[in-house]
Amino acid sequence: MDRSVAEALDRTDPLAGMRAHFAFSEGGPIYLDGNSLGRPPKETVAAVAAAPAEWAAELVGGWDRWIDLPATVGDRLGRLLGAAPGQVLVCDSTTVNLYKLAAAALRDRPGRPVVVADAADFPTDRYVLEGLAAADGRQLRLIDSQRQDPDETAAALADAVDDRTALVCLSHVNYRSGARLDVGAITAAAHEHGALVLWDLAHSAGAVPVELDRWSVDLATGCTYKYLNSGPGAPGYLYVARSLQDRLRQPIQGWFGQANQFEMGASYTPAPGVGSFMTGTPGIIGLRAVDASLAVTEAAGVDRLWAKSERMTELMMDLVERRLSPLGATLATPRAPGKRGGHVSVAHPDAWPWCRALIDQGLVVGDFRTPDVIRLGPAPLYTRYVDCFDAIGAMAGVLASGVDGRAVRGRVT
Amino acid sequence: MDRSVAEALDRTDPLAGMRAHFAFSEGGPIYLDGNSLGRPPKETVAAVAAAPAEWAAELVGGWDRWIDLPATVGDRLGRLLGAAPGQVLVCDSTTVNLYKLAAAALRDRPGRPVVVADAADFPTDRYVLEGLAAADGRQLRLIDSQRQDPDETAAALADAVDDRTALVCLSHVNYRSGARLDVGAITAAAHEHGALVLWDLAHSAGAVPVELDRWSVDLATGCTYKYLNSGPGAPGYLYVARSLQDRLRQPIQGWFGQANQFEMGASYTPAPGVGSFMTGTPGIIGLRAVDASLAVTEAAGVDRLWAKSERMTELMMDLVERRLSPLGATLATPRAPGKRGGHVSVAHPDAWPWCRALIDQGLVVGDFRTPDVIRLGPAPLYTRYVDCFDAIGAMAGVLASGVDGRAVRGRVT
Repeated sequence: MDRSVAEALDRTDPLAGMRAHFAFSEGGPIYLDGNSLGRPPKETVAAVAAAPAEWAAELVGGWDRWIDLPATVGDRLGRLLGAAPGQVLVCDSTTVNLYKLAAAALRDRPGRPVVVADAADFPTDRYVLEGLAAADGRQLRLIDSQRQDPDETAAALADAVDDRTALVCLSHVNYRSGARLDVGAITAAAHEHGALVLWDLAHSAGAVPVELDRWSVDLATGCTYKYLNSGPGAPGYLYVARSLQDRLRQPIQGWFGQANQFEMGASYTPAPGVGSFMTGTPGIIGLRAVDASLAVTEAAGVDRLWAKSERMTELMMDLVERRLSPLGATLATPRAPGKRGGHVSVAHPDAWPWCRALIDQGLVVGDFRTPDVIRLGPAPLYTRYVDCFDAIGAMAGVLASGVDGRAVRGRVT
Repeated sequence: MDRSVAEALDRTDPLAGMRAHFAFSEGGPIYLDGNSLGRPPKETVAAVAAAPAEWAAELVGGWDRWIDLPATVGDRLGRLLGAAPGQVLVCDSTTVNLYKLAAAALRDRPGRPVVVADAADFPTDRYVLEGLAAADGRQLRLIDSQRQDPDETAAALADAVDDRTALVCLSHVNYRSGARLDVGAITAAAHEHGALVLWDLAHSAGAVPVELDRWSVDLATGCTYKYLNSGPGAPGYLYVARSLQDRLRQPIQGWFGQANQFEMGASYTPAPGVGSFMTGTPGIIGLRAVDASLAVTEAAGVDRLWAKSERMTELMMDLVERRLSPLGATLATPRAPGKRGGHVSVAHPDAWPWCRALIDQGLVVGDFRTPDVIRLGPAPLYTRYVDCFDAIGAMAGVLASGVDGRAVRGRVT
């Protein structure tokens, strides 16, 4: 395979024009870390820059409109996630949202002593669940699938989930391997045992299809700063299925989750609908950023994003096997299209110095994930097929010339 | 008293030049709602507008520096609050921070069944405590001081707090009446009973003196969008006294509160120091805004801010008694300088239509607080003495010409 294959794919890429929506100058290293922090869309830059003028002009009166943004931006995001209006809020961080959702689920299943999660999933999810389980004497049961094969994960879950399970919490796409689970099937299996299921969409939303309503998802959360390009630490979001909204109570009873907020009544009455999952005053500049970034994703269209993401990762995996495997690297992502997300992981014993050398030499920005993985996240909105091709070439070059783990210092981020 | 008194105060105001730091055009209504949402400093507008360029240029590598911002901006804020470094974080919202702090305190006092708060305090505080108390079968005991006289509040607390009290949670300055409590004395009295005390600084920080270390405060939280002018829904902050940091555990165990965050270990180990009170990924644009706004407050100097705030509220209360009391309004804020904060509240049975008429006629932006109060918050950084004078004059004019409660519609914010 030579570069002309990638060039041909770019020439016929229906999303090629979307790259012009992003604020960056050509010529830097190839950025394959859009699944850690997406690039800024020009629309988002403009929305952030305009936010202080709105603040200055409207002052406290702006809240007449701002107060609705967590729900209206949430509904807009919901359309990309297959969620009917009234089920998604953009608010707080992914961690805080996961805490609220998991706590609400546990409260709803008091007689069930077990929470099931995956040891291979992102730390914040496991840590939050560990804290919640310990707080009321439940057990956090971790399957350890490593997520190389989603079918094995599903099998491990079938063994682990039973009528004593209160909650199952999983990532749709694993942050490390990129393995993608069958949300609908796993949710249905857990429901048969009477358990609730909470999905972390951080590594799927914006890259692979998400159909929350169709999959009968109970609860979900995710972030907006990866494939959704809303900026470093932009607000998180949450989804609560309409059928659960009247039953579930989350623990952080703030004034934004209160019915009749400005009556400032004597005691807390949850707002109707998903609104009771709000906590405190939402950050308006962050919400303006998310809103602007969603417009860019909408303009691309989710179907075209999924199609390009799948094709780019396919190309990248072909190249990993042809050019990096002979140098001792291993593909750490499932090959089958239906079993992976939008990123490709490559394992190598010297992954950390290799990743640093690629960054320090200005070649490729990937993401090291302990202990031995480089994660490559092409973003269908702005990554070209030739970027994928060239990145693997650069990685082969650096690896072939030798990397020295002892020579590299610095903080691992 | 005529306007020349106010004009003379403005001529000798050492902070008069600070008004030029704020982004607004002269000629609009008099804005006395800086204690709900402060005006944007030009430095903050510039910092927000610059943030996307930093994001675009540094991408994920920016986290090498961004990751320290909650602590470094926290230390900077701490200097304004009398807190030595390593005790303040800027993160999450006030509501979420209050939840974390109160939950940590309750966990540290397991045998004590009572939480004490004030029914007159801000709803989100009471609602959060109500939820936490109910969750582990404790009683939320509300004194109801109405906070007209801080001495009466202190007396009510003396009756309510005993050896069964786990936590006392109070506002330093009451959001409605403006009454200011003696933090040091109340904290010391609660400590004699072995209770912890959590202070909400939302309506004090930036307007009245705060000396967290000197007052032996255990825990505190507040927001940055009022007198600290960091924008609508800008991040909150929290303070945990160094002596408590090793003992207290907050419940939202996210990856940003984890020791050795990027080792992504199997189980949660709290970060040393105040860092364990972090939760998820912090919003960087919001932190840049707070940092820039703090520089403006630093330039003014806290002593000069307190001095001007006291003198402005003194003038305003004189005018309320001379010009509004004859029209049936009542001063709802304590007169003694040591017993009040940076805002002045005026009660009237038609406060709501009166407040709306002042806004709708483009005269004065104050803040209605149910059921019968208009809250006037002059901000020492940008409010002039003549603004205070003219505002009371406009309020007298509108009240004298008659307001009709039935004619006003719209959402109360």
